[in-house]
Amino acid sequence: MTEQKQKTTIVLFSGELDKAIAAFIIANGAAAYDHEVTIFTTFWGLNVLRKDRQPTVKKGWLGKVFGWVMPRGPNKLGLSNLNMIGMGPKMIKHVMKKHNALSLPQLIELAQEMGVKLVACTMTMDLLGIQQKELLDDVELGGVAAYLGDASEARVNLFI
Amino acid sequence: MTEQKQKTTIVLFSGELDKAIAAFIIANGAAAYDHEVTIFTTFWGLNVLRKDRQPTVKKGWLGKVFGWVMPRGPNKLGLSNLNMIGMGPKMIKHVMKKHNALSLPQLIELAQEMGVKLVACTMTMDLLGIQQKELLDDVELGGVAAYLGDASEARVNLFI
Amino acid sequence: MTEQKQKTTIVLFSGELDKAIAAFIIANGAAAYDHEVTIFTTFWGLNVLRKDRQPTVKKGWLGKVFGWVMPRGPNKLGLSNLNMIGMGPKMIKHVMKKHNALSLPQLIELAQEMGVKLVACTMTMDLLGIQQKELLDDVELGGVAAYLGDASEARVNLFI
Repeated sequence: MTEQKQKTTIVLFSGELDKAIAAFIIANGAAAYDHEVTIFTTFWGLNVLRKDRQPTVKKGWLGKVFGWVMPRGPNKLGLSNLNMIGMGPKMIKHVMKKHNALSLPQLIELAQEMGVKLVACTMTMDLLGIQQKELLDDVELGGVAAYLGDASEARVNLFI
Repeated sequence: MTEQKQKTTIVLFSGELDKAIAAFIIANGAAAYDHEVTIFTTFWGLNVLRKDRQPTVKKGWLGKVFGWVMPRGPNKLGLSNLNMIGMGPKMIKHVMKKHNALSLPQLIELAQEMGVKLVACTMTMDLLGIQQKELLDDVELGGVAAYLGDASEARVNLFI
Repeated sequence: MTEQKQKTTIVLFSGELDKAIAAFIIANGAAAYDHEVTIFTTFWGLNVLRKDRQPTVKKGWLGKVFGWVMPRGPNKLGLSNLNMIGMGPKMIKHVMKKHNALSLPQLIELAQEMGVKLVACTMTMDLLGIQQKELLDDVELGGVAAYLGDASEARVNLFI
């Protein structure tokens, strides 16, 4: 449409498997169409970018509680609907595998390979006591200013 | 603003009555202002476009389970809030009727009359085993590429 | 990008503490970058703008029920996640205070000071029986037409 590269941004606020899958499918699709894509993870969305294994970090007790009650990474997320005490996510993962759809960890890896910029909200990290080494490698840190810088030049801006 | 028709797109991810009503009110409003409007239904949003009556279709057992546990069409949806085991949707429908607000099935019909393009996500149909004849007539099928094609020319792009 | 002031709009549909905080942080950030910002509250989002204290108003019985079951103002909201029968909101408020982050009532006040336009959806007010004097001062009333007027001139349009 324009001479410049199109931009697309997604605020990933939710930490649920189905919403994260939708976010990464849209992001990867936009990257395939040569958009510059940013996923800005905030609040529960940060859990999507957590490493499976907890590295040794020093935390206050509240940070420890949050770290413990929140899902650690894409394999631990629940569904926004039909979660059914964890049976829902299993069923979704099962049908995705059966249809050769990429799993969420694979979608995230693909996003990183395609140059989708993954940003973790610094305010959320402060509040929930999440430290950078608990997050996937190559995740950038940023605040609302960084997000707005990208979003105000983008056409497709979603809040998920 | 521009000489061309304005475009508006909505990704309807949620399958809840209140969110679907909001999506269709915005879509119909935009169509009334002569925007070209697309509602791209994905994940639970597809349930909004299911027919009340199940047509005879052949399905695997997982498709049958999903077909059974998910709400069939706009009259069966729950609320995102105050659902109260189905009492919430009844109350909302009651007050909407009392105030002569259009019901969700009427909003959908109006959208179709006004030329709002209703698209069902093909990936979701595959995963949840939903077939085209289970959906309302005139629903188009499409993937993330079709969505991005519309969204990257639109100004108002919402994820609901 | 353009010579005119940039515009940003947020539909605040959700009435949860975490989502409302996210909405106001983005809105206030955009206002700080000199965007013209509108937060259009609809459905449960209206509860965010309710006054703490119920003024004397005449209502039908359904309006009374909705008024009673829905949270009255920013201090009463639950979380979209980890609500844990009200323990979640307390924890979030505690960590926000500890980190000197603005509370939701403070974020709302700041938004009003920065000229963020707060709009309450008239259709929702009708349906849920909410009257203008139950809402914060200086909240405007408007419908989907007013929203679309702003959104179709904006670049960042979010549905939260």
